[in-house]
Amino acid sequence: MSEPAIPRRVEAAVALEGRRAELRAFDVPAIPADGGLLRVETTGVCGSDWPYFLNYPKTKGPLILGHEMIGFVSAAGSVASKRWGVKEGDRVALEEYLPCGHCDYCRSGEFRLCDATDTLLGDGIRYGSTPISVAPSLWGGYSQYLYLHPSSVFHKVPAHVAAAQATLAIPLGNGMEWAYLQGRAAIGECVVIQGPGQQGLACTIAAKEAGASLVVVTGLGADRHRLALARELGADRVIDVEKEDLLKSVADMTGGAMADLVIDCASGGPYTVVSAIHLARKRGRVLLCGRKGQPVPAFDSDLLFKKVLTVKGMRGHSYRAVEMALHLIASGRYPLEKLCTHVFGLNEVAEALRTVGGEGRPDAIHCSVNPWQ
Amino acid sequence: MSEPAIPRRVEAAVALEGRRAELRAFDVPAIPADGGLLRVETTGVCGSDWPYFLNYPKTKGPLILGHEMIGFVSAAGSVASKRWGVKEGDRVALEEYLPCGHCDYCRSGEFRLCDATDTLLGDGIRYGSTPISVAPSLWGGYSQYLYLHPSSVFHKVPAHVAAAQATLAIPLGNGMEWAYLQGRAAIGECVVIQGPGQQGLACTIAAKEAGASLVVVTGLGADRHRLALARELGADRVIDVEKEDLLKSVADMTGGAMADLVIDCASGGPYTVVSAIHLARKRGRVLLCGRKGQPVPAFDSDLLFKKVLTVKGMRGHSYRAVEMALHLIASGRYPLEKLCTHVFGLNEVAEALRTVGGEGRPDAIHCSVNPWQ
Amino acid sequence: MSEPAIPRRVEAAVALEGRRAELRAFDVPAIPADGGLLRVETTGVCGSDWPYFLNYPKTKGPLILGHEMIGFVSAAGSVASKRWGVKEGDRVALEEYLPCGHCDYCRSGEFRLCDATDTLLGDGIRYGSTPISVAPSLWGGYSQYLYLHPSSVFHKVPAHVAAAQATLAIPLGNGMEWAYLQGRAAIGECVVIQGPGQQGLACTIAAKEAGASLVVVTGLGADRHRLALARELGADRVIDVEKEDLLKSVADMTGGAMADLVIDCASGGPYTVVSAIHLARKRGRVLLCGRKGQPVPAFDSDLLFKKVLTVKGMRGHSYRAVEMALHLIASGRYPLEKLCTHVFGLNEVAEALRTVGGEGRPDAIHCSVNPWQ
Amino acid sequence: MSEPAIPRRVEAAVALEGRRAELRAFDVPAIPADGGLLRVETTGVCGSDWPYFLNYPKTKGPLILGHEMIGFVSAAGSVASKRWGVKEGDRVALEEYLPCGHCDYCRSGEFRLCDATDTLLGDGIRYGSTPISVAPSLWGGYSQYLYLHPSSVFHKVPAHVAAAQATLAIPLGNGMEWAYLQGRAAIGECVVIQGPGQQGLACTIAAKEAGASLVVVTGLGADRHRLALARELGADRVIDVEKEDLLKSVADMTGGAMADLVIDCASGGPYTVVSAIHLARKRGRVLLCGRKGQPVPAFDSDLLFKKVLTVKGMRGHSYRAVEMALHLIASGRYPLEKLCTHVFGLNEVAEALRTVGGEGRPDAIHCSVNPWQ
Repeated sequence: MSEPAIPRRVEAAVALEGRRAELRAFDVPAIPADGGLLRVETTGVCGSDWPYFLNYPKTKGPLILGHEMIGFVSAAGSVASKRWGVKEGDRVALEEYLPCGHCDYCRSGEFRLCDATDTLLGDGIRYGSTPISVAPSLWGGYSQYLYLHPSSVFHKVPAHVAAAQATLAIPLGNGMEWAYLQGRAAIGECVVIQGPGQQGLACTIAAKEAGASLVVVTGLGADRHRLALARELGADRVIDVEKEDLLKSVADMTGGAMADLVIDCASGGPYTVVSAIHLARKRGRVLLCGRKGQPVPAFDSDLLFKKVLTVKGMRGHSYRAVEMALHLIASGRYPLEKLCTHVFGLNEVAEALRTVGGEGRPDAIHCSVNPWQ
Repeated sequence: MSEPAIPRRVEAAVALEGRRAELRAFDVPAIPADGGLLRVETTGVCGSDWPYFLNYPKTKGPLILGHEMIGFVSAAGSVASKRWGVKEGDRVALEEYLPCGHCDYCRSGEFRLCDATDTLLGDGIRYGSTPISVAPSLWGGYSQYLYLHPSSVFHKVPAHVAAAQATLAIPLGNGMEWAYLQGRAAIGECVVIQGPGQQGLACTIAAKEAGASLVVVTGLGADRHRLALARELGADRVIDVEKEDLLKSVADMTGGAMADLVIDCASGGPYTVVSAIHLARKRGRVLLCGRKGQPVPAFDSDLLFKKVLTVKGMRGHSYRAVEMALHLIASGRYPLEKLCTHVFGLNEVAEALRTVGGEGRPDAIHCSVNPWQ
Repeated sequence: MSEPAIPRRVEAAVALEGRRAELRAFDVPAIPADGGLLRVETTGVCGSDWPYFLNYPKTKGPLILGHEMIGFVSAAGSVASKRWGVKEGDRVALEEYLPCGHCDYCRSGEFRLCDATDTLLGDGIRYGSTPISVAPSLWGGYSQYLYLHPSSVFHKVPAHVAAAQATLAIPLGNGMEWAYLQGRAAIGECVVIQGPGQQGLACTIAAKEAGASLVVVTGLGADRHRLALARELGADRVIDVEKEDLLKSVADMTGGAMADLVIDCASGGPYTVVSAIHLARKRGRVLLCGRKGQPVPAFDSDLLFKKVLTVKGMRGHSYRAVEMALHLIASGRYPLEKLCTHVFGLNEVAEALRTVGGEGRPDAIHCSVNPWQ
Repeated sequence: MSEPAIPRRVEAAVALEGRRAELRAFDVPAIPADGGLLRVETTGVCGSDWPYFLNYPKTKGPLILGHEMIGFVSAAGSVASKRWGVKEGDRVALEEYLPCGHCDYCRSGEFRLCDATDTLLGDGIRYGSTPISVAPSLWGGYSQYLYLHPSSVFHKVPAHVAAAQATLAIPLGNGMEWAYLQGRAAIGECVVIQGPGQQGLACTIAAKEAGASLVVVTGLGADRHRLALARELGADRVIDVEKEDLLKSVADMTGGAMADLVIDCASGGPYTVVSAIHLARKRGRVLLCGRKGQPVPAFDSDLLFKKVLTVKGMRGHSYRAVEMALHLIASGRYPLEKLCTHVFGLNEVAEALRTVGGEGRPDAIHCSVNPWQ
């Protein structure tokens, strides 16, 4: 399929201080031999976009957010096309990472940890969190077109997959990475997932795919519809922690054994770290999958010793995890359309971000932005 | 070699409240078909014996401490002999565990976690921490004879190995389990070991055997001779944390990369938990190998997330780890006699315990008790 | 539930030379302190029972076959009851193994490899292949009662599970061990299983539980109903190798990539070893799960080198695998009743064996013997 | 350090049919933005160069052999320099692979298996086996300069390491990959290595680094000096299979247990495949590390089943393995200078190749070519 001619000017939603986003037009950059251009089809809104929206315009300057991109390769320099293994017109999902390609991490299949693209421990760059002051500005998915950096990481997306579902490749890749590849959810195990957001739901799917026989998802009263969706996606039990005694419930349903694997995907403070450790059985595993922002007061490290626990900090996804996610999405075996609750236009990006941050439209799970809508 | 005739009465050192131990005579129990008797040759003094000495006489009642036993099988019931694979006269090392043999842990090679012998999370029994009120009283190694429970776990000990060194089977087994089997110390890695006690020194040996190229052992000023011994056992660097800036030193010697594996064997509060987490490199592993007794104030769990760390609570040893340790001891490749600093008689058990607790003789590393001295 | 009084004489089917079995009465042995007695409820017929039937009566002497036993603990000596963790009246599945309990394999969770119960590489004993000349004769499941040896390995069986399905614990345990625990079938993978007998069907279930997305089962024209059952159990594709070009079909359905994992459960000569190696993709895994009885002529070992293959010989199951199998059986999630095609009485054991050997009743998959029928 | 000016014409040894090599001058190619040029310092001669020399000139056409290159980056295009993480003047070791960078293998740290650089299962290209008919001809290390393809994989080499030893990075990387990363040689194990060539000796070093306590190297009578060197590198025992009964010797030294790991690095037919399988203990691992060229007649695949063996075909090295090798070389802990027996000039390449093929100078182990000598 031939790509539309590339316009000279394209529109993007630029995030600004004060929780604002405004539409701006940008010149399309010249395409270097080792770079390219993506015509964005749809970009998913990640939970992390909300803190990015609150902080980055101030600390980094105005920027185009959005890093769960699906689109079509609109242009690829001659060097780039060979390096990437894609050609014009290919429908692709992009990872947010821009790894250097030659460090120990990159050469060992762990490019998600590459310093060049690490924005937490260093000043690496990646899609969706690089300011427009860095040329050529088009670093985010809430835009009609995206600049393809030489280090881009691509996945092919089959034509039959709906774009909004395809944007689940990254969050569902996280679920595969965390619950399965790192957490080692196994046949017959009990897995407790704290937090029924899109990451928690992705972990639910991954844990069921892995054969876990008792998958429990926990949330608050306000998460009622998310917990209901967790059930539809295969969770065996859900717990509203405002109504039920979490530890007692898990003890009851496991005959006192507690959970083989606990995945803490909750936001909202450090207390779920403590409950995660209490939920784990002797020799259990605990995954901490998000920033808490506050220290745990009086943390009893002896519980790790007594229960012989393994606690792992988690972030991001491997290439394999995203491939597994796309394979699952393409299979149609899960009602993923129910996760895709809202699609916003480019002029609604602030509303989309507020919705994911819990301050916009109700009952959202996975939102996405269609820049052509 | 035929065993000496079993006496009718044997002597043992009974630990009492008030940091006291007294010699008492006990009737030798009748040997049931599924039990037996060990003539103790020597028993090592474990670091944990000190808190046991301080607490157990009060909480459990008088008891015979000591759980790093080397001895000769003096009697084995007909059922026991088949079950254990040993016969009268065999020289053996015993594990402290008395696992049930039929639970999931026992059937999967993880009998150290068996509830029947878990004294931390339950009221299991094991050698060296069971009171004399439980028949037949002879549950500890600071005794001339030890009762062999049906669930005993044996290792054969070659005749040429000195008894005091053979009692290192358990602590060196811990080192093999922690640094190698669980910690996965690998060729070329940097391993930092906090605390140069016998466990830390055992981890030093295990890390070097595993091919780690930069093994760093840390201690206090008072640990000077232990740190010197760490060097003799293969440590590439030692750090007196009262004189050097620990984090800066490790950063300097690793070119800023920090440690692949950090093993916290220090006692004395929760602060080494924090330094362990700071010492680990991105994607590093941290092992917490002992009870801290106090919570970590304001624990920054986000460091696990940011650095993608794996933190494992550790206790005990697998059968394989103890076999590896005995194999290493028997090889004579390490100057283990230098670890074996003191041998006490049965009437000196309180002094032996104080020495291990830091309140007795100076410059002790591994002490043992010879009940026939 | 109290057990019926133990009779003084019990009946068993004794396998004899010439493919014969005859009913004989045996005195019930005295129960030693470390032994016991099982009232057999039902015993499954394993594929290996057929070669046992053909060979063992001649090489070992008359014997009671049958080693997939479900029953009730009828008596347990005082020592045995503690060691086993079972009590009179418990409903249990037994493993065929009688491991020593104290060797490296036993202490490390690999008791299936224990020399004491290895009948292939040594003269170990186990249930269902020990002659009646070894006291107390009652070593096989095709009997009303079975002697419980001190080294018996037990699994609890819930009351609601039908006995014939419960006898699948061992073959389904093999499937879990081979396809999952050893073969590492993973989410999204292509798994080809050669041979649709009960082992192959068990591997089919395990591979699907593990999340494999393309499970292919192969067989002959005569396996038509077995292949149909494979489909019902979740196989994505079945191939009649007499009608289809096996390699071409797998190439077509994988876009030329071939299989991540190939499990050869076929009997009937060494040719499936060769096809297994051709079916595997670069870096694939191949499991050889049964004795071929003949060498592979002109075996091209360079294929392992060129394709960087891992080839594993497989036999038996771990404790965990059987627990996983029983958990799955108890869940009722698979139509396992369709595997359980025939139940025979004690006087029909020869017919049962011939049926499993392909010379008796047609369309059999899993047969079992009910000694009270 | 600034690089010498690049000459316009450079010399290289071109391999031709009839076991001949001739010096030819080549124009230095223009350096594209994504390519570069290496000033070769020294190139090691791999055992595989001998069959390449015999076959490739005929099947592929004239070519510059040599793929264990050490050199200095003489030129790097602007795109290439960023992609590679090297700059002009850097001293580097190159891998022979030219992986695509974007396939599943490349993205997962297994780029050695990338189809783009696979010359066994496909028509990939790599250094040292690509004919001069493919522009720009300079694909091999037996040359003054080498063309740096965009997909080149680099390792930094410290200035203090002698060039001839640095060329061991690739063969010693194989040893690390095979004996350690894939073979999982472990503390206390018995490892038998068949074939004392440079790969076998590299495996010897890796097995000792990994803590194996009994490393046995086997060879023929003609390998006397290689076996002696194996001893110097740490082998605990060597066996001349023409004088000793191999299986009996290993049985004797292991008390009948046989080897945990057998690594077959022998050339000369398929018979070592059979001995490897006989040498392995129950549950042992066998690595087949080279092409045999002939099928194994009457291969008893049932031995894999009976002994529950794992047999792996091996080729090549991961990035990590080469880094480990370079780290070890730089440490100076092994007398690697003794492996480096011969250095040849560019006009002696045919003699160098014959020497490695066993038809040139005697007593060679690792040879290298210095193109400036």
